[in-house]
Amino acid sequence: MIDLTQMGQQAQAAAQVLAQLDTATKNQALLAMAAELTAHTEQILDANARDLAAASDQPAKFTDRLRLTPARISDMANGLKSVAALPDPTARIDGGFTNAAGLSIIQKRVPLGVVGMIYEARPNVTVDAAGLTLKSGNAVMLRGGKEALQSNLALTQVLQTALTKVGLPAQAVQLVADPSRALANEMMHLTAYLDVLIPRGGAGLIQAVVNTATVPVIETGAGNCHIYVDQTADLEMAKAIVVNAKVQRPSVCNAAEKLLIHQAVAADYLPALAAALQAHGVALRGDEAARAIVPNMAAVTAADWDTEYNDLIMAVKVIADEDEAIAHINRHNTKHSESIITNDYASSERFLNQVDAACVYVNASTRFTDGEQFGFGAEIGISTQKLHARGPMGLAALTTTKYQIRGNGQVRE
Amino acid sequence: MIDLTQMGQQAQAAAQVLAQLDTATKNQALLAMAAELTAHTEQILDANARDLAAASDQPAKFTDRLRLTPARISDMANGLKSVAALPDPTARIDGGFTNAAGLSIIQKRVPLGVVGMIYEARPNVTVDAAGLTLKSGNAVMLRGGKEALQSNLALTQVLQTALTKVGLPAQAVQLVADPSRALANEMMHLTAYLDVLIPRGGAGLIQAVVNTATVPVIETGAGNCHIYVDQTADLEMAKAIVVNAKVQRPSVCNAAEKLLIHQAVAADYLPALAAALQAHGVALRGDEAARAIVPNMAAVTAADWDTEYNDLIMAVKVIADEDEAIAHINRHNTKHSESIITNDYASSERFLNQVDAACVYVNASTRFTDGEQFGFGAEIGISTQKLHARGPMGLAALTTTKYQIRGNGQVRE
Repeated sequence: MIDLTQMGQQAQAAAQVLAQLDTATKNQALLAMAAELTAHTEQILDANARDLAAASDQPAKFTDRLRLTPARISDMANGLKSVAALPDPTARIDGGFTNAAGLSIIQKRVPLGVVGMIYEARPNVTVDAAGLTLKSGNAVMLRGGKEALQSNLALTQVLQTALTKVGLPAQAVQLVADPSRALANEMMHLTAYLDVLIPRGGAGLIQAVVNTATVPVIETGAGNCHIYVDQTADLEMAKAIVVNAKVQRPSVCNAAEKLLIHQAVAADYLPALAAALQAHGVALRGDEAARAIVPNMAAVTAADWDTEYNDLIMAVKVIADEDEAIAHINRHNTKHSESIITNDYASSERFLNQVDAACVYVNASTRFTDGEQFGFGAEIGISTQKLHARGPMGLAALTTTKYQIRGNGQVRE
Repeated sequence: MIDLTQMGQQAQAAAQVLAQLDTATKNQALLAMAAELTAHTEQILDANARDLAAASDQPAKFTDRLRLTPARISDMANGLKSVAALPDPTARIDGGFTNAAGLSIIQKRVPLGVVGMIYEARPNVTVDAAGLTLKSGNAVMLRGGKEALQSNLALTQVLQTALTKVGLPAQAVQLVADPSRALANEMMHLTAYLDVLIPRGGAGLIQAVVNTATVPVIETGAGNCHIYVDQTADLEMAKAIVVNAKVQRPSVCNAAEKLLIHQAVAADYLPALAAALQAHGVALRGDEAARAIVPNMAAVTAADWDTEYNDLIMAVKVIADEDEAIAHINRHNTKHSESIITNDYASSERFLNQVDAACVYVNASTRFTDGEQFGFGAEIGISTQKLHARGPMGLAALTTTKYQIRGNGQVRE
């Protein structure tokens, strides 16, 4: 029987310890976690094999994400070592000032406290989240997909052993070991203990958490991304970027789902763009104007414009001008990543300023929206909301600030 | 019949215009709003008189907040002029870097979009919120307390006239003119149009919004603030600070509600502290140890430790040591403002680092937690949550960031 209130209390107590640790101690814990993972590879693979056996009726795409191998466990351990090598986000002071009353006011970075994660059957998220929250001084409560329960139990046990070995509270990393809906629901309302809830997974999971939780949520990952090929675009560059953004890894949130093309170049460019995409197995769905130019596309439906395919599918629309492109994007996008291919300076500036998204690109693939690619070293998710953090979230997104105010007897007049 | 979806669409369209304005145009609008308020003082007072007449059965405290006077309207106009004089938070670029692929990545401050405000029957909030959201480039949807409806209608009409006069969309400032619970509830779920919801008012209103809203909420204002008098405290300083924090304005969230005093000085200090507070009409409620020293206190109950009085009441607890003080505060506080009075360096540092609150003070009154006192020039509220903004929120809290990324054909390997 899982008692979430008790888990929350333990997490909060652990968080108070973690918040006061120096960077060296946290790094030592991360390295111990990495060593312990490697040392228990067999035990983790055994647990994972039980999960895989129970999930044998699931599609290959699903079991591929669930499957652990010695190489993947080694990757997880290396990930923890990389996090140990990153700067400590709570070592930072954002700024400070002396106010009119002579108070010295310092704004210091501090951990959030207790982070809740709700995610799908991907055991690597368990280790990633534990490493990032620990480095930023937070305790974490993990609720992974039910199909990964045995793997997650084995992983958290190993991580807790490492924490104990370096003298830290094991409850800094806890697994909600009953992956039922009822308990997930209770977790979404654990406002007394959770400072933030980060859902990771498909649109359905994210929306369920956003609509249900009273704990503050950071919404992540929905990506209906567009590439707009302007009339001044270089065709070869456009082709390389559109193909990369669509096919390099179609299942992820920063893959492009929509191609908008200016009417002045549609007849010249679209046949080459479509052929390049189709050569990579992309199924195209065009509006009337696009199909008049490239007849071997399916007809697009209204619902397509709001759909994130996460697959080798792309919808194509011929656009009258940049204003129409920007309006279309702002109406249908998920505020993730949008790109314009252009050689016109004014067009590039309009697009950068008027498109409402976490990341707006000129002449580059949307696939770069990623903590690793941005140079953050690690990523807890990609925020598509506007509060707290926007775009790829590194360690800093797992912190907040505190004003520390030093006086010498000031009272308010 | 109020159509919130239509209002949301209009707000979003207005927000897209506001986001592209230069600072001078926004300032011109703020000055026009100030001028229009002054010019229509009579009309606003007439509307306010109708609200006051309908609220004649309400307590004086309530009608005092509802009441407008020529001086108060002039204050509101001056407030708008002050906001015009503040720096534009969206003019800032937070930073930038070139990533490994050679992309130039700039993190720019941008408006949130559409801000929703739910507040009580205080017409000044209508004008404050309109000014701050406009300056930060946001549209606002205002839902004030039903008892202020006529005042709010008159005020928003005047503000909209000013917007129209300077060529800006009137829908940048909209009032939800049906202050029913059903419509407030619908507003809390207007995720397609509202980027954030900021409740302002008593604990009941704030909690109702936090528990109901699916729109991201910034929680504000609950303040169960403590002052801990350490054994090394200067008694005269402690007396001045405790009295100031408790009595200077007891109804507000940064007033102190609890006095913790170290056992080593309780017998020496408490009689003088209690007498000073009682001389200002403060009703004291003590624990057993406190009442053994100062018998003329009522007995405290367990519920007191979690209660924000907003009144001339203060609960007193004798504390064994600083660890107990910090643990008590972290268990019962609302993460708003906490202060230690001490002359011991190590104690001050422990308190600053271990107390979990937006603002932690040494040797100063908690009453300084305020945007004006911090030098922000204006305040949209005081955040007691940890995401997005913590502590007094000035104009910057009404912005988010956007990554603008300039490339020259980069694709991801």
